[in-house]
Amino acid sequence: MAFEFGSFLSQVASGEAKPFVGYPPFHFVGGNIDEPTVPADALADALGDVIRKHGASMGKYGMECGPQGYLPLREFICGMLRRRAGMTVAPGEVLIATGSLQAMDLVNAALLDKGDVVLLEAGNYSGALSRFRALGVDYVGVELDRDGMRMDALERALSDLAGQGRKPKFIYTIPTIQNPTGSVMPIARRHQMLALARKFGVPIFEDDCYADLVFSGSRPPAIHGLDDGGQVIYCGTFSKTVAPALRVGYLVAPWPLMGRILPLKTDAGSGALEQLVLAEYLPAHFDAHVAELLPMLQQKADTLCAALDEHFGASVEYDRPVGGIYLWVTLPENVDTDGLFQVALEQGVEINPGSQWTTDGAANRHRMRLCFGHAPVETIKDGIARLADACFAEFGVPVRSGNVGRD
Amino acid sequence: MAFEFGSFLSQVASGEAKPFVGYPPFHFVGGNIDEPTVPADALADALGDVIRKHGASMGKYGMECGPQGYLPLREFICGMLRRRAGMTVAPGEVLIATGSLQAMDLVNAALLDKGDVVLLEAGNYSGALSRFRALGVDYVGVELDRDGMRMDALERALSDLAGQGRKPKFIYTIPTIQNPTGSVMPIARRHQMLALARKFGVPIFEDDCYADLVFSGSRPPAIHGLDDGGQVIYCGTFSKTVAPALRVGYLVAPWPLMGRILPLKTDAGSGALEQLVLAEYLPAHFDAHVAELLPMLQQKADTLCAALDEHFGASVEYDRPVGGIYLWVTLPENVDTDGLFQVALEQGVEINPGSQWTTDGAANRHRMRLCFGHAPVETIKDGIARLADACFAEFGVPVRSGNVGRD
Repeated sequence: MAFEFGSFLSQVASGEAKPFVGYPPFHFVGGNIDEPTVPADALADALGDVIRKHGASMGKYGMECGPQGYLPLREFICGMLRRRAGMTVAPGEVLIATGSLQAMDLVNAALLDKGDVVLLEAGNYSGALSRFRALGVDYVGVELDRDGMRMDALERALSDLAGQGRKPKFIYTIPTIQNPTGSVMPIARRHQMLALARKFGVPIFEDDCYADLVFSGSRPPAIHGLDDGGQVIYCGTFSKTVAPALRVGYLVAPWPLMGRILPLKTDAGSGALEQLVLAEYLPAHFDAHVAELLPMLQQKADTLCAALDEHFGASVEYDRPVGGIYLWVTLPENVDTDGLFQVALEQGVEINPGSQWTTDGAANRHRMRLCFGHAPVETIKDGIARLADACFAEFGVPVRSGNVGRD
Repeated sequence: MAFEFGSFLSQVASGEAKPFVGYPPFHFVGGNIDEPTVPADALADALGDVIRKHGASMGKYGMECGPQGYLPLREFICGMLRRRAGMTVAPGEVLIATGSLQAMDLVNAALLDKGDVVLLEAGNYSGALSRFRALGVDYVGVELDRDGMRMDALERALSDLAGQGRKPKFIYTIPTIQNPTGSVMPIARRHQMLALARKFGVPIFEDDCYADLVFSGSRPPAIHGLDDGGQVIYCGTFSKTVAPALRVGYLVAPWPLMGRILPLKTDAGSGALEQLVLAEYLPAHFDAHVAELLPMLQQKADTLCAALDEHFGASVEYDRPVGGIYLWVTLPENVDTDGLFQVALEQGVEINPGSQWTTDGAANRHRMRLCFGHAPVETIKDGIARLADACFAEFGVPVRSGNVGRD
């Protein structure tokens, strides 16, 4: 006779998981990457050396370096951010976190109380939106265009809030390979965002998780790098370039804020093995590894676009990705992608419904996010074919694909 | 001109860290272990193999195994818990967490709302107490004796709460190498706790973090193993046996509760490298490694006791540890260990003041916890000598140590 936990559950424990039964064959969701791109052999080589050299230091929580994480890894990150993102950062301003998700959780814990408000892009990472909701924090979605968050809309949002006597705790932005729209904010607009942030006295929280994945290999400087007022908090990750399961991300914050964040990181340290291994592997291999990854992702993006063109034709609109691992698709208004999610899943295809990736979910039920990072090229083609079939069966869209009428 | 974050901080962000400047030379705190005991070479061997074999699976969040963690590691844990703790557990009831700290945080998140109450031992892990306080959860400390939590006191506490119309969400217990008192709860008392928990309809949350460190190598069955009613939630860790910096712990919960916990683990998975490595290393090495560790810890415990006897003499009371990595010391009532903490730190010695390790802090200001897991034997002796000097200088205690009067 099993104990009944029902009456013991907290208010937040409302969700109920089902036992994991594996991934659908065609899953166009999540930040997973393609297995062959995980640099397993190089990591293994790096690992053997580093454990023998430094393994004993794992006897201490935080090893020898205290709560901010392995110093050589932080030093690498500082150099990498300078070269790639134009940022000038000292190791003391860097915190190694268990994925950028933890970096986000820590910033939220340090700055947000229930009832606070934040500004963010109107299309956004579903995990960020769900976190704000879980914290009882309001968010205002700022309109996006092909260059990212619109600054006229941002200024309007800041003024409106000021008129209500409210001030957002921060502007959360994903300016480089915006999630889910894929845009890259041009440098001039980055300066404008900084100017508005200064004018209204609001910090910027810049999430650069996908910034290493611009296909051309070059990206505008991070907003953090353009700021000299200590007004930008920044996070990034190695999940998208090396391997998501490693769980190594980083937070960059000026010391006055970092000092407030550290006591909130009560986990006694993020994984030591990962930090040791990455500190050994990255200096020699990161740039070359990313350089290999980009054309592979470009090819997958091209494959996905070609498959959408073939199977959905003029029924969909999308902007070709310039980087990253996802594509944002607009379908005819009679298509409800929450419904499409269900019927597609029955065919073994998983998509991200637009309602979960936008602040105005109701207005975006005809949009979807498709991730192409993980699926091999053949799977992408087959998966999109199946998706089109499921979509037609349920919504009569697309009417025609390729040379084949579906009537 | 740096941005002022002061007015942006949340209510919980009240603590402020100082930059890490390294550990004091004699730090008798924390669950750190001695560097030479980290099995670095064996881990390195295990690692090289496992990354080459399985590294590609790190391309997925959660690898191939979903949110509960690497299946081979969960299978090992089930076998280990059966052999060592008399528990019958299936892999589906196990969740690999980022240290047992995360296991604790997840149980708390699933069961606790602000204003709830829990029962726990009157001497307790400071990290548990601070977490309950941070959550706005009340706790009632139940009296301890040399065999752990007293059952007459537990029954009284349960009845008292019932009389107030309150029911605790769980009884949190550390029955095997209780933290900080070091006791091991005998099996009869474990059955009594279960009977009381059933009578009052309250779950037990059993924290077995130190249970592998009983010096004799044998321990009573876990309370979880004595229960057939699905009423016990259980956590353990490899931090104390293999290496704290690895951050691998585990939660065992019946599926109805596990299903509620999983959606709250929003970190996209605990570190993959650690899981892969431990799954490779532990089956062949865990028992032998622990068997090597125990006499080393026993020797350190003996050294610490001898040093206390020599330098503090009759001024202190303590029970000789039967396992684990800490010792609970009672000093004369005029010694305030919060004050002792400060003066000792100036001499490079760090201790745990009793007020932070008890539910009635004010009544325990003359007690302290000393950890012996990390410090080498010579350091223990020197550190205790310095501690005695600092204590005498500040409080006039001990008056006499060894053959030397301090007058």
